Amino acid sequence: MPINQRQVNIDLKEMPTQWYNILPDLPEPLPPPKDPESGESRLKNLPKILLGECLKQEFSQERWIDIPEELQHIYHQAGRPRSLFRAVNLEKRLDTPARLYYKAEFYSPTGSHKVNTALAQAFYAKKEGYERLTTETGAGQWGTALAYGAALAGLKCTVFWVRAVYSWKKDRRNLMELFGADVYASPSDQTEFGKTLYGKDANHPGSLGIAISEGMEDAIKDPKAIYCLGSVLNHVLMHQTIIGLETKKQFVKFEDYPDMVISCLGGGSNFGGFALPFVHDVLKEGKKIKFIAAQSKASPNLQGEYRYDFADYAEMTPMLKMYTLGHKIDMVPIKGDGLRYHGCSPILSLLRDKGIIDTIAYPEDEKHVFERATQFIRAEGFLPAPESAYSVACAIDEALKCKESGEKKVIAFNVSGHGFLDIPGFREVLNLK
Amino acid sequence: MPINQRQVNIDLKEMPTQWYNILPDLPEPLPPPKDPESGESRLKNLPKILLGECLKQEFSQERWIDIPEELQHIYHQAGRPRSLFRAVNLEKRLDTPARLYYKAEFYSPTGSHKVNTALAQAFYAKKEGYERLTTETGAGQWGTALAYGAALAGLKCTVFWVRAVYSWKKDRRNLMELFGADVYASPSDQTEFGKTLYGKDANHPGSLGIAISEGMEDAIKDPKAIYCLGSVLNHVLMHQTIIGLETKKQFVKFEDYPDMVISCLGGGSNFGGFALPFVHDVLKEGKKIKFIAAQSKASPNLQGEYRYDFADYAEMTPMLKMYTLGHKIDMVPIKGDGLRYHGCSPILSLLRDKGIIDTIAYPEDEKHVFERATQFIRAEGFLPAPESAYSVACAIDEALKCKESGEKKVIAFNVSGHGFLDIPGFREVLNLK
Repeated sequence: MPINQRQVNIDLKEMPTQWYNILPDLPEPLPPPKDPESGESRLKNLPKILLGECLKQEFSQERWIDIPEELQHIYHQAGRPRSLFRAVNLEKRLDTPARLYYKAEFYSPTGSHKVNTALAQAFYAKKEGYERLTTETGAGQWGTALAYGAALAGLKCTVFWVRAVYSWKKDRRNLMELFGADVYASPSDQTEFGKTLYGKDANHPGSLGIAISEGMEDAIKDPKAIYCLGSVLNHVLMHQTIIGLETKKQFVKFEDYPDMVISCLGGGSNFGGFALPFVHDVLKEGKKIKFIAAQSKASPNLQGEYRYDFADYAEMTPMLKMYTLGHKIDMVPIKGDGLRYHGCSPILSLLRDKGIIDTIAYPEDEKHVFERATQFIRAEGFLPAPESAYSVACAIDEALKCKESGEKKVIAFNVSGHGFLDIPGFREVLNLK
Repeated sequence: MPINQRQVNIDLKEMPTQWYNILPDLPEPLPPPKDPESGESRLKNLPKILLGECLKQEFSQERWIDIPEELQHIYHQAGRPRSLFRAVNLEKRLDTPARLYYKAEFYSPTGSHKVNTALAQAFYAKKEGYERLTTETGAGQWGTALAYGAALAGLKCTVFWVRAVYSWKKDRRNLMELFGADVYASPSDQTEFGKTLYGKDANHPGSLGIAISEGMEDAIKDPKAIYCLGSVLNHVLMHQTIIGLETKKQFVKFEDYPDMVISCLGGGSNFGGFALPFVHDVLKEGKKIKFIAAQSKASPNLQGEYRYDFADYAEMTPMLKMYTLGHKIDMVPIKGDGLRYHGCSPILSLLRDKGIIDTIAYPEDEKHVFERATQFIRAEGFLPAPESAYSVACAIDEALKCKESGEKKVIAFNVSGHGFLDIPGFREVLNLK
């Protein structure tokens, strides 16, 4: 491969046809979800809030799960496979001996990696006879992705969006509507639970926990509807492994292989999707890779406790064994809002507990992160989402350490989304005009 | 190729290494630029406002012009080659026997095809020893693309932006600043010409003509600076032929070939870049293709007169033989602002005069165009720029004619940009919440 090669892609025929399920390869069995010691069973609700196929995948011990052929075509329609870039220009400007590679998940129809599982869930929902998808969204990336997945599949979609975010992200809301979704500020007057809060305060700012409750209630009451989740769970991370599986094939074309694998981490879906196929190589093939999850000090969940906790504020979900800050914790608002979640996915939590994943948390003012993102923008030309800016910052910081030490490390990082709909965040943090 | 195939791309090694220069293949010699009958010579300024290499290319009679190897790598860095998609989902929903293909120029770092010439001009400017690029911008796509090109090349960039647009497109302005550009509302206090207007009225709304004058003056006064143009001229269209050249190779992989080639047209750079390699096949290989330029009734320049006219309001440029509405005409504002230009590029004007290019102009309220774009978004998932929505609308209209007639036409259209920074336009036209 020429030294100046800046991009590779694989042919459509080379695109992975199976997802990677890490469950059978984990160092020890994954602690299962469980019910709290008192109160109603949450586990019994699982079949009502998870697609049949996804529920099967959630606990499967098969290492490789087929991507249905029709879904492979839908991935093509969404622009997969996505290129792997070598950051030649950035390396030069940093004057680092490290080699930097970034995966272009930002080349997504809705702007983020979330489409990889949204398309899969919409596909299974259609196959299982559902007519409508319901969900919640915080930052908005997941709601947009599911609205898109539903549109392509010809399904209806209802999104409950935390009012505090809904109110100011007008462009993103309109994008969901362009995809045909019904979008409600949460708490709303569309559900019984929502009404109990909305009735008292029509300007209630809402929370992810409340929005989850509304999405679940809406689906449970309508036999033609199914609730969909965008992160944390095993099957979601598995759908996302298409990212890392492509990346591994692209590294072969670059005739290179990473020493470090970096991405940002909120609930864990982009990090898991990018990293797990490489974790496989560490666990099963004796490779040595340093994995770093780039987080915010607003929600450094991997620096919390490893214990059973609820996935939502309202305690409607089963309890999951995970690194958590506590499901009732208050977190400072940040521009990288998609990273602001109290717990980390059970799979990644177990890997963290085994010492396989490292973590770094950046200050809540986000200045360092956005300045690093600006260096990336000027050298490589792509505008990362605020969340992805954490991934970029961590990669640049590691490249500069290599400059100090003289080490020629190979650093791979995922740019999980673009920032075209998040420019006001850059403006505020960087004091642009 | 499987019937369900929705995307093809070419390998990086197959990417065109030469641009196509149509000048030697035109049915008759292109009328050269000329001076007006009275007043100062404008032609003598050309070497001061055009890069040496671009000036050479502007009048070259070589059919194929090499893309410098380093620039090929920069095209890779910008994500080229870009995929060609078959609109399988859209065809089904329209229930048309036509086969629809669209080129994904929207997968661009700054959001449009403009980067293809911005990167070339920045590359030549660096090679010719310049340190700063100056330009004007109207809708903002060209200013963003040049800011990006300059950033990658390590050059400074100054953009004079029509104040009426500058004032409300804050996100796009910040994007240019993230690339490191200096952006001024025009008329500004940065140039002598600007001051004559700005001094009288600091809120002067400006015009493209005024901004061009400022950009030119700024470059002429600074020997380290050069002015750059983003459309209309021969060399700009030639840089854009990378679009159509890739598309032709991708059609070979689809084992298909277009009966119709459609794109939107303002000054002509995306239309020319997409269509000219196919015009070659019509002129030199006897292929039969219908070319349609999708325009707005706000500026249907191809329905104007074919005569010599100035390219700018202020009459600073040489006169060009082109289809024009008159360089002093007032045009109604539309959301597809990039289509609002009084004249069409000389090359495309000649082809129009010879009956090779057809044109259609859509009503100024843009309802039909944005509704067609919504059909495209829901079926294919990609959000087109308002300008590109004209291309989409024309393609869908032609596909529906095929449904009437039963003809299995192959329709190729270019989606020249994405609309992530233009959602307020969709909101207004479609009355979204």
